[in-house]
Amino acid sequence: MTQHKNITAKITLLGAGPGDPELLTLKGVKALQNADVVLYDALTNEALLEYAPAEAIKVYVGKRSGEHSYPQDTINKLMIDYALNYGHVVRLKGGDPFVFGRGYEELDYATSYNIPVDVIPGISSSIGVPGLQQIPVTHRGLSESFWVITGTTTSGEVSKDIYQAAQSSATVLILMGLKKLAKIVEIFKEAGKLNLPVAVVQNGSSADEKLVVGTVETIESLVQLELIKAPALLIFGEVVSLHPSFKKLVKQYASIA
Amino acid sequence: MTQHKNITAKITLLGAGPGDPELLTLKGVKALQNADVVLYDALTNEALLEYAPAEAIKVYVGKRSGEHSYPQDTINKLMIDYALNYGHVVRLKGGDPFVFGRGYEELDYATSYNIPVDVIPGISSSIGVPGLQQIPVTHRGLSESFWVITGTTTSGEVSKDIYQAAQSSATVLILMGLKKLAKIVEIFKEAGKLNLPVAVVQNGSSADEKLVVGTVETIESLVQLELIKAPALLIFGEVVSLHPSFKKLVKQYASIA
Repeated sequence: MTQHKNITAKITLLGAGPGDPELLTLKGVKALQNADVVLYDALTNEALLEYAPAEAIKVYVGKRSGEHSYPQDTINKLMIDYALNYGHVVRLKGGDPFVFGRGYEELDYATSYNIPVDVIPGISSSIGVPGLQQIPVTHRGLSESFWVITGTTTSGEVSKDIYQAAQSSATVLILMGLKKLAKIVEIFKEAGKLNLPVAVVQNGSSADEKLVVGTVETIESLVQLELIKAPALLIFGEVVSLHPSFKKLVKQYASIA
Repeated sequence: MTQHKNITAKITLLGAGPGDPELLTLKGVKALQNADVVLYDALTNEALLEYAPAEAIKVYVGKRSGEHSYPQDTINKLMIDYALNYGHVVRLKGGDPFVFGRGYEELDYATSYNIPVDVIPGISSSIGVPGLQQIPVTHRGLSESFWVITGTTTSGEVSKDIYQAAQSSATVLILMGLKKLAKIVEIFKEAGKLNLPVAVVQNGSSADEKLVVGTVETIESLVQLELIKAPALLIFGEVVSLHPSFKKLVKQYASIA
């Protein structure tokens, strides 16, 4: 890969936010407006591409939980190749670039080619998606912390951090965990958290957003009943009890008893 | 408090992000453009107020770690009073409204007056500030999760969650914890994490941003030496070792030994 004349190679790792294109930052808009190339993921809303100049090259590299259109290595190489040949590459990633986005691997690879990298944070769905549902990740008297974990690890196993998290008093937010829900529920049950409130949000901040609310005991059957699909965020914690549909649930149970 | 004629009371809880005004979202800009009143915190950049109409009322309610210009109760009441009298109140809060911002208390209070509340997430400094320093909160092989904790609890004690976190394999991010650094360092030492990399970032994303990088053993003296002041974010985790200044540190030690 050789550097072309009059081309200043530069890469911006840009967090697109959870889905709603209006949750992009002003800094993100500017970066896209100055893009020569945009490499974008499955989880980013294509409406965002309209901020890039019409003549900019837009390449879909389609990374989504469990379905990698391109291996990471290919994405890294494409990124460098485009930067050296065209100039400013915006690497547009769902959520925040450093929250399970393998963003640092891309930064590291670019740095090894002496290509300068800017990072522009994005709204992580781990915080933004509960927030849009008016579920606070922290709340006095209920939660002094929150713990964000990936449900899908390199090995295919559930992260060992989930075992620790189930024992903790943190609000636990699990990204890319829907396929592992049965195992995760089992871990929380073993931790004695049968009645802990749980919410699952499909496609948070998008038009087809869908929410189910239950407890560790009931959430699996609710997810099946409501046909919840990935991408989805799992929220385990007392803060879920603040959601209106949880309050309704409690009322229903009370009226049966 | 009585509802005025022709006024539609409405409240938007808006996350301003970590400080850089360009880290506001497009949705945030729109909300400010449609504000009749803006109630803003110490941690929000005043440049953001320029998005609000010139005739909008702007009220500083100055909440900052340990220095509350107004008690929460007064802020709640002001918010309702302004909404009923002027219409759309934008409650502009540093970072994300639900990350230790007491945002849910404000939402709950407004709901008790039947005033509709919109939530617009913001970039939490817990994720955005490390990201801007090119420290990823997660990275394959180093960290499968991150845990965000407040350093300042209602009781004045260090959160018990910090004890659990020091034992965990998560990247630990502590907001409003600078004053408790000695105690927090002690907790990590007791957990046997003497050599764990630590970074402290003062005023992340602002013009006077300042970073120190060390280990659990060295960070206290470094913070004193560099005269780090609040607001600051504490980052405990192996991911800090990815920062160039940590790599330099390791090289220096190696050359002494």
